[in-house]
Amino acid sequence: MIVVLKQNPNQTQLDYLINWLEGKNISIHTSVGDSHMILGLVGDTSKLDADLISALDIVESVKRVQEPYKNANRKFHPEETIIKVGDTQIGGGTLTLMAGPCSVETEEQMIAVAKAVKASGATMLRGGAFKPRTSPYAFQGLGAEGLRLLKLAKQETGLPIVTEIMEISQLPLFDDVDVIQVGTRNMQNFNLLKELGAQKKPVMIKRGMSATYEEWLMSAEYVMSQGNENVILCERGIRTYESYTRNTLDLSAIPVLKHLSHFPVIVDPSHATGKSSLVPPMAMAAVGGGADGLIIEVHNDPAKAWCDGPQSLNPVQFDKLSRKLIAMKDFMNSLED
Amino acid sequence: MIVVLKQNPNQTQLDYLINWLEGKNISIHTSVGDSHMILGLVGDTSKLDADLISALDIVESVKRVQEPYKNANRKFHPEETIIKVGDTQIGGGTLTLMAGPCSVETEEQMIAVAKAVKASGATMLRGGAFKPRTSPYAFQGLGAEGLRLLKLAKQETGLPIVTEIMEISQLPLFDDVDVIQVGTRNMQNFNLLKELGAQKKPVMIKRGMSATYEEWLMSAEYVMSQGNENVILCERGIRTYESYTRNTLDLSAIPVLKHLSHFPVIVDPSHATGKSSLVPPMAMAAVGGGADGLIIEVHNDPAKAWCDGPQSLNPVQFDKLSRKLIAMKDFMNSLED
Amino acid sequence: MIVVLKQNPNQTQLDYLINWLEGKNISIHTSVGDSHMILGLVGDTSKLDADLISALDIVESVKRVQEPYKNANRKFHPEETIIKVGDTQIGGGTLTLMAGPCSVETEEQMIAVAKAVKASGATMLRGGAFKPRTSPYAFQGLGAEGLRLLKLAKQETGLPIVTEIMEISQLPLFDDVDVIQVGTRNMQNFNLLKELGAQKKPVMIKRGMSATYEEWLMSAEYVMSQGNENVILCERGIRTYESYTRNTLDLSAIPVLKHLSHFPVIVDPSHATGKSSLVPPMAMAAVGGGADGLIIEVHNDPAKAWCDGPQSLNPVQFDKLSRKLIAMKDFMNSLED
Amino acid sequence: MIVVLKQNPNQTQLDYLINWLEGKNISIHTSVGDSHMILGLVGDTSKLDADLISALDIVESVKRVQEPYKNANRKFHPEETIIKVGDTQIGGGTLTLMAGPCSVETEEQMIAVAKAVKASGATMLRGGAFKPRTSPYAFQGLGAEGLRLLKLAKQETGLPIVTEIMEISQLPLFDDVDVIQVGTRNMQNFNLLKELGAQKKPVMIKRGMSATYEEWLMSAEYVMSQGNENVILCERGIRTYESYTRNTLDLSAIPVLKHLSHFPVIVDPSHATGKSSLVPPMAMAAVGGGADGLIIEVHNDPAKAWCDGPQSLNPVQFDKLSRKLIAMKDFMNSLED
Repeated sequence: MIVVLKQNPNQTQLDYLINWLEGKNISIHTSVGDSHMILGLVGDTSKLDADLISALDIVESVKRVQEPYKNANRKFHPEETIIKVGDTQIGGGTLTLMAGPCSVETEEQMIAVAKAVKASGATMLRGGAFKPRTSPYAFQGLGAEGLRLLKLAKQETGLPIVTEIMEISQLPLFDDVDVIQVGTRNMQNFNLLKELGAQKKPVMIKRGMSATYEEWLMSAEYVMSQGNENVILCERGIRTYESYTRNTLDLSAIPVLKHLSHFPVIVDPSHATGKSSLVPPMAMAAVGGGADGLIIEVHNDPAKAWCDGPQSLNPVQFDKLSRKLIAMKDFMNSLED
Repeated sequence: MIVVLKQNPNQTQLDYLINWLEGKNISIHTSVGDSHMILGLVGDTSKLDADLISALDIVESVKRVQEPYKNANRKFHPEETIIKVGDTQIGGGTLTLMAGPCSVETEEQMIAVAKAVKASGATMLRGGAFKPRTSPYAFQGLGAEGLRLLKLAKQETGLPIVTEIMEISQLPLFDDVDVIQVGTRNMQNFNLLKELGAQKKPVMIKRGMSATYEEWLMSAEYVMSQGNENVILCERGIRTYESYTRNTLDLSAIPVLKHLSHFPVIVDPSHATGKSSLVPPMAMAAVGGGADGLIIEVHNDPAKAWCDGPQSLNPVQFDKLSRKLIAMKDFMNSLED
Repeated sequence: MIVVLKQNPNQTQLDYLINWLEGKNISIHTSVGDSHMILGLVGDTSKLDADLISALDIVESVKRVQEPYKNANRKFHPEETIIKVGDTQIGGGTLTLMAGPCSVETEEQMIAVAKAVKASGATMLRGGAFKPRTSPYAFQGLGAEGLRLLKLAKQETGLPIVTEIMEISQLPLFDDVDVIQVGTRNMQNFNLLKELGAQKKPVMIKRGMSATYEEWLMSAEYVMSQGNENVILCERGIRTYESYTRNTLDLSAIPVLKHLSHFPVIVDPSHATGKSSLVPPMAMAAVGGGADGLIIEVHNDPAKAWCDGPQSLNPVQFDKLSRKLIAMKDFMNSLED
Repeated sequence: MIVVLKQNPNQTQLDYLINWLEGKNISIHTSVGDSHMILGLVGDTSKLDADLISALDIVESVKRVQEPYKNANRKFHPEETIIKVGDTQIGGGTLTLMAGPCSVETEEQMIAVAKAVKASGATMLRGGAFKPRTSPYAFQGLGAEGLRLLKLAKQETGLPIVTEIMEISQLPLFDDVDVIQVGTRNMQNFNLLKELGAQKKPVMIKRGMSATYEEWLMSAEYVMSQGNENVILCERGIRTYESYTRNTLDLSAIPVLKHLSHFPVIVDPSHATGKSSLVPPMAMAAVGGGADGLIIEVHNDPAKAWCDGPQSLNPVQFDKLSRKLIAMKDFMNSLED
């Protein structure tokens, strides 16, 4: 950690700071420039609060040299995290395809869509039982009944399930769920993250609407700090000024997260773009950029096709895309040599 | 609600849509242009899901004419909401000054800072007992003990208390709290909002880090939809590309929210700017822009002054600012005539 | 165009508006809802100023149904634009690889880098002669001498040249340039765009730092409105709150622009990410997403390797990437069937 | 400047760097931590290119301790810049009120609006002769004729004129203009800035749509570096995700710019908010926050009132606001003691 002091710092305060740091077994290298004095702090600075030091009257700015996350850090955990789910795995060169409807609605719907996406190559089934909705008047999901229907579809097809939790008290209902999803609005619900860290199911953390990479990794750190190492990160677009797409899909997140951390990275082109016509090209781009998988909305009821979300594909569209994605991943893997 | 159709829409799908709408007692005015057909929907469109309609193959776009919030809407609730708290009120021409430390630490600290800010004109005491922290390794607040210390300071000074809740299970601890704060990361924690709507204490909702005005008002609507009308909105800056300030304080929120809704609007210049030197000018600007009050961080321990947040004022600075703010509010009120 | 009126509009003003519109050969369909009256304007609304109408006291909002760009619009110009440059073309299924140094420095440098990138498969040579720099004290480029060196490299290798213009008065120097680049800071330098529209060389318009797709297409419209149809669009990242990358590369721009317009789309992963390690994965992602080409910074002086921009590849890195990109484009083209 | 090296840096490259720096009369303080080595560079680092150094293979990051601007820097130019214009001044405790129509249209309009705003207390007349428009088909301003009409209004009322330049070649037409405005889209038109630095008229630089404070000050530095010290900065809102207002007015810019630099700061609430009803509260907030003045759009033709921009006030509204602003500035000045 580097501390840049203001010009002509008060000597009493400076002595106070230095004593305090030395009391924490930090040694200090002083560098006096023409206009500023700089302190280089050497030792275990991971527990120093940078905000606290930068608040000192005599301090101009503080710069961390080391990342604030440890368990999530590639430097201290160089091997890639691979997560076993049912007969499949997430990470390690595999292409994970999570597919299914936005909301769980009926048994017929879930069985039909699960069979369809499995036939097209999907490796996991998605579907929302608890739905975070901007309006209190909008449909909030089937809840426990939705989880029951997901379980039926899993039994029927063998596809592992990924679905969203919204609150700690719902956790007992997630026994048959294979991957627990933390939604974008809960990425910094720290109480929820700690609770999910204290159990063993894999946790997929969607990026907050305007979360930095570092904040996102700190949320993964919350889960890991409680003992659960099975974390997956899901890029789903960030909020920018551009309104043509619902969000701006940030595919640079893929190589950045793979460099900074060791987690599998999944991309959600459906929620990121909000337009079904943009899902195929952005899914292909994600695989080209090195993603470990995708989570894609697929609806299946032709009579009510017009009722589904504007970002959903129908099974025929998904089938066509899925085949291209699998071919693309094979192509990418062939390049690695 | 206006529905713009794509060019040459499929007639079967169009009939399907029109029947479905008419089944919901919506009447439809059709307008045929050179390149597009437009449907004007007349009736109670508040329960129609715009996303759902815009997903139709034949639909190009949908535009709401009415706001999606009802209880929060100034149009349906023209009188200003005024909230009584202890001997004071929030809104209605009063200047609310919430002041106190970022975190509750010790009894001495809390009593001393409470007495100091009261003497300077503060009308409420703030202080964090549950602290949302980006890092799992940072101090997470004193919790229940912090609430006990806040209560002591309230007994000593008579100042009502405002403090943050992070999770539903903490609610029983908030009996002596006067205003419950929902933090920026929980603005769309819908389960928490509903629970706070089902009790009667006033709820102050801080703006989400990248929340639109409409999303913010929909969060207020969540609380009101459960029966609690005592909502306060707190602008605390939004996340932009500018990194010199911690966030970008959006003071336009004040007149916009007062136009769209009927709630008191409080401004938090401390967290918005992250720099104590910017707190006084931005507090003055907020009152100039019509804010009903401010929430300001004040620390009080001179020996550890350097330990407090970079955005905190000391009691002497707060005293000087407070007097200016009160004079400014008087000046502003004198202009209203 | 749809005009939503405020509640109870003043009848005199409404008559005034209707007369004014009818005077412009616009016919008006009126739709009266419970709370709002809506006017549907039919006719050639492309020359109506939406801002002007929305300024009316009686108007709540205005919504365009048609895009404000004509020449740039895919609807009126369905065939893809393909641009011939030297022996190569941009668009039409080809992979354009523009490569070269950030700044033109010396003859040796330019000849060497041009030969190297050509051998690796580059189809055009890039290099900055006029350099927009944030600081007046930074190196501003070699200017006319830089253009001379680019020309030498072109003569030596046969590679067409793309380089940036900063100001109208520089145009006479661009005789030997094959594609004129408009930089991100000049995307809305309308005088420059008009001048470039009045000549015949292809113009590559980089996206403004925070430009919407529509604004970007309107800049293309400026060029086309003066008679020059040879426009290329270059996505180079937008400014967001994320600071780990220099900008946020928005690859959704590729399918969006190809849907809305007919221009070739080039991607610049070097400036977008600002980190050489992110250039290969983002270049691959761009081709996966359907880009027509890439513009990539390559330096070539091993002795001063550390002097080049952090986003530049060296020739060995570029060679490896180039082969992968060409294989990827072949793979993508093979899927089209 | 601080250079943080990567772990285990290559010794040859490190020696190369150190020699190169010492050749520039920079002395180096080395600090070796547990995981990183840090170089503190002492001497005149203002001409070192941080990007260049951060590109070194052995360098992890570079941090400037000193700002990259000199002439614009409050540290080296502590006295506030006060600019004399006609009988008035900008800065130094004065309230500058620039008012007038968006576009110059007719002689009658200009004379009438100039007389009206003068009577209400305006100190300068604004009006656009060259208009940057997103669409090539929109009215682009009267040009030279517009400047002639502004001059007439100035002769009639004595009000100094502020108006926008779009291109270097227009400069000879600006002889009778008192303050030359650089628009938001030209904030980084470096050729234009240099040209305006080489003449003596005051230059008002509007903030770029997504410009940082530092970039903005570097644009002021461009003007000052050529010898013109008469720079004014104008905050006009930045682009964010919020679309209810046209831009997000960033009033924190006022105290930040006054801390970092010495220029007068003007605020444009009309373009920032895009809504006339938000102009008065935001203008008041700006004066409360310490602004030196405002630039406000005022239209004057009642018969065509509906034709003006949605952000324009009429003369009666401006008169009411102007009186409040003057009273507010007096109130603020009375507090300074």
